[in-house]
Amino acid sequence: MLVKDSAYLCEQIRQKKSFLCVGLDPDLEKLPNHYLNGKQPFLEFCKDIIEVTHHLAVAYKINIAFFEALGPSGWEQLEQLVNIIPNECLLIADAKRADIGNTSKKYAEYYFDRLQVDAVTLHPYMGVDSLEPFLSYHNKWSVVLALTSNPGSADFELKELSTGVLLFESVLQTFVKIKQSNQIMFVVGATHPEYLTKIRKICPDHFLLIPGIGSQGGDLHQVIQAGRNHNEGLLINVSRSIIYPELKKSFKDDVFQAAQNFVTEMSRYF
Amino acid sequence: MLVKDSAYLCEQIRQKKSFLCVGLDPDLEKLPNHYLNGKQPFLEFCKDIIEVTHHLAVAYKINIAFFEALGPSGWEQLEQLVNIIPNECLLIADAKRADIGNTSKKYAEYYFDRLQVDAVTLHPYMGVDSLEPFLSYHNKWSVVLALTSNPGSADFELKELSTGVLLFESVLQTFVKIKQSNQIMFVVGATHPEYLTKIRKICPDHFLLIPGIGSQGGDLHQVIQAGRNHNEGLLINVSRSIIYPELKKSFKDDVFQAAQNFVTEMSRYF
Repeated sequence: MLVKDSAYLCEQIRQKKSFLCVGLDPDLEKLPNHYLNGKQPFLEFCKDIIEVTHHLAVAYKINIAFFEALGPSGWEQLEQLVNIIPNECLLIADAKRADIGNTSKKYAEYYFDRLQVDAVTLHPYMGVDSLEPFLSYHNKWSVVLALTSNPGSADFELKELSTGVLLFESVLQTFVKIKQSNQIMFVVGATHPEYLTKIRKICPDHFLLIPGIGSQGGDLHQVIQAGRNHNEGLLINVSRSIIYPELKKSFKDDVFQAAQNFVTEMSRYF
Repeated sequence: MLVKDSAYLCEQIRQKKSFLCVGLDPDLEKLPNHYLNGKQPFLEFCKDIIEVTHHLAVAYKINIAFFEALGPSGWEQLEQLVNIIPNECLLIADAKRADIGNTSKKYAEYYFDRLQVDAVTLHPYMGVDSLEPFLSYHNKWSVVLALTSNPGSADFELKELSTGVLLFESVLQTFVKIKQSNQIMFVVGATHPEYLTKIRKICPDHFLLIPGIGSQGGDLHQVIQAGRNHNEGLLINVSRSIIYPELKKSFKDDVFQAAQNFVTEMSRYF
C-alpha cells in the first residue's frame, strides 16, 4: 500500500508544482445537461473532471453531502468514484463527521476500511476521544476543522478563551500535542489569511487543507505566502470555480482550462 | 402533516408518562444471531424493537453511522426504517452533520425532504450560518450539540471563554437568541448532571435531548430533577441498555422488559 504521508505529499506538490485539491461537489441543479440523462450522472461528471485534471491536482476532495442527498444511488456512485481517483493523488472524504467513540468507529470503518480513502474531515467540538477511532488508523489522515471559511466561524471558532487564545487556536494546540499528531491535518479557510502567520507558529509542520479559494473569495497569493512551510504543507481546495466553469468551449475543455489557470498561478512559487 | 412542536411533545410525554427516546444503533457485531441470516438484518432488528417499545417511547433516535457503515444497503434499510417509525413518535436522525451553507443544504434536503425525519442532530462548531439550511425548515427540529456525554467534552465544550462562560454555555446562549430558537433542541449528556441547573437558567424553555443514561452511567433521577421544565422539556435517550438487553426470555421480551423498566422509573415523576 502506498502511504501518503507528509513526505509523499511534499514530493507530489513539488513534482506537479501544484497545491491543487479539486473539490468534487456534484449538484443536480448545476450539472451540464448531457450528464442528466445517464444512470450515474455524478459518477460520469466526476470521471470527466478527473480525466482532465489528474495531472494538475495533488488531491481530490469528495463532498459527501452531495452523494448522501441522493440516497442509496448516491452511495453506489460514491463507491465507484473512489476507485477511479488516481492512486498517486490524496483522496479526502469531506464528510465532517465525529461522534462518541463507538459511533465514530463505525464512520472510521466505512471511510477507511470500506471506501479506503486517505483522509476524512472531522468536527473537533466533542474533543479528542471522539476522533480516536479515526486516529487509530496509522496510515490515514484525520483532517480536523480549525478555522472554517464561512462567516459563522466568528460565532465560536474565533471566540477568545480565558487563557487568551482563540477557540480554533486551542483546537490546533490540542491536536498538535497528541501522540498521533503526524496524522493530523487542519482545515483553515482562505478567507482568513490574517491568521495564517499565527497558525504557522502553533503548527509549523502540519499540512493545512485550505478551502475558500475561488467562489468564496480567498486570495491565493496571501495563502501561499503565509501558509507554506518547509515541506510545502498546503493543499488548496478549489471546487465550484473548477467544476462549474464559465462555458466557453466544451465542458471538459473548460474544466481543464480552469484548473490549469489555478496551477499556472501556483507554479510561479516553485 | 402532524407538527411535532414543544406542545405536542409535552402532551405525548404526559400521556405516556415517559421521557423515553429509544436509540436505534444496530451493530452487526451485537445483533442476535437470528437477524444475521436475513437480507435486511438492521431493518428486521429495528422493526422488532419498535413493535415492543412504541407504546413506551415518545421518540426514536436513529444512529446514522451504523447504517452508513454498511454502504448502500444500509441506506436502503434506513429509508425503509423511517417509514415504520410510528407517526406519533418524534423521529430523530442522529447524524451529527454541519458544513458550510451550500453543503448543509444538501444534508437538510436529504433528512427533512427525502427521509422526512422530524429532527437532526448537528455540530455547532462552524457557527449559526452552517445550520441555517436546517433551520429554514420551520416545522423541523435542529438538535444542537451543547455538552456531550463523552470524556472529551472537557477538551473544548467545557473550556472557559474570556467572558467567563463555558464554550457549551456560549453555544446555548447563541442558539437561544436566534429567531428560529423555537426549532432548537440541545444535546446535554446525562453524565454531567451538575450542569443541568445552570443550563436551565440559560434555556428554561427548550427541550433537551439527554444521552448517556444506561451503558454510559448517567443517573435518571438527577436528570429529571434538574432538567425537567414547565412543558416537561426532556427526551431521555437509551440505546444499548434497551436494544442489547441481557438475555433472559426471548429477544423481544427482553427488549420490552428493559424499556418497561426505564418507563416504570420515569412514570413515578407523573
